[in-house]
Amino acid sequence: MNRAEYPPLLKELVAQLKRMPGVGPRSAERIALWMVSARNARTSEIAAAISAVAASVHPCRQCGFFTTEPLCEICRDETRAGDLLCVVEQATDILPLERTGAFRGLYHSLGGRISPLDHVGPEDLRIGELLERVRQGHPTEVILALGADVEGEATANYLAGLLKELPVSITRIAQGLPAGGGLEHADELTLSRALGGRVKW
Amino acid sequence: MNRAEYPPLLKELVAQLKRMPGVGPRSAERIALWMVSARNARTSEIAAAISAVAASVHPCRQCGFFTTEPLCEICRDETRAGDLLCVVEQATDILPLERTGAFRGLYHSLGGRISPLDHVGPEDLRIGELLERVRQGHPTEVILALGADVEGEATANYLAGLLKELPVSITRIAQGLPAGGGLEHADELTLSRALGGRVKW
Repeated sequence: MNRAEYPPLLKELVAQLKRMPGVGPRSAERIALWMVSARNARTSEIAAAISAVAASVHPCRQCGFFTTEPLCEICRDETRAGDLLCVVEQATDILPLERTGAFRGLYHSLGGRISPLDHVGPEDLRIGELLERVRQGHPTEVILALGADVEGEATANYLAGLLKELPVSITRIAQGLPAGGGLEHADELTLSRALGGRVKW
Repeated sequence: MNRAEYPPLLKELVAQLKRMPGVGPRSAERIALWMVSARNARTSEIAAAISAVAASVHPCRQCGFFTTEPLCEICRDETRAGDLLCVVEQATDILPLERTGAFRGLYHSLGGRISPLDHVGPEDLRIGELLERVRQGHPTEVILALGADVEGEATANYLAGLLKELPVSITRIAQGLPAGGGLEHADELTLSRALGGRVKW
């Protein structure tokens, strides 16, 4: 007698679901069993939604945001200020900035950040495209909205070195105490940057 | 100017992923963005695995376990003891029992348990099929392996009432202290059942 196992197709589904971020072996099994136990069409709907996105959603050819058109919603919006260009690491950084409602310009996603440990160099990022946009579009200001970690800093430094050759002012987003955070919860580096970046009252 | 949003297809994918068990709004968004950011074929592989399972995996017509054949691996296994029939609530309860290696008989999944609050009555469960299997297959023992909660108890009582009319002995799995658990962590009901079910040393 063999101990029973799930059919191979079901095991393959568990293996595939396990690849998704934040889904461990137990969640993957739970989701897979929920899918086969489903009495209605929801499982096919999920598969269809994934396939549709895989087939149609791609990066905007100008800024890298997600779109089903050649140019994304943001790049097509003629009411936006073309003189402000905000550089982010990932396309996924754009929507959090949009949700603030505090920015009315255009974006440029680099598609990553310089990280020698991950074998990501400047040539792997959309830096040439950025310089070309600055040369062609003549923005007055490029805002570097990169991560406040080592790789984000390195990437910002590298970009600033290239951009200072062009007639554009370069800024970067502020670092300091997060909103709602007390001093007792902030780490030393955050506090030292908050001190260094202090502004006049 | 409008604040940008994700393309509708991407929002639809987030909505679909959110329906999966254990996946909240933030995980669903994270998984969806991981899928569109993927540079390789993994997204299509996941969709294909889901579609394949939806198309091919169904309940065994005898016991209700998952299979791609008419009868599942367990029901087809001729080395199993046909005189032992273990009744479980869900097909997903079968593999945990298999993994113990402590059971060599056949299973019968009810497809749920009696739960008036969820509008599940006896007529919604595979109880007729169970009685038919007992009448036709002449097992010597039916083991009720149902949950140790109110609905599980009610279902076990209901089944025992029907099965006692048939020439078969009825048992149910033991309730008591979980393995590795100290008395200080057990709730009162578990302890009272462990006491009530005490066995001779």
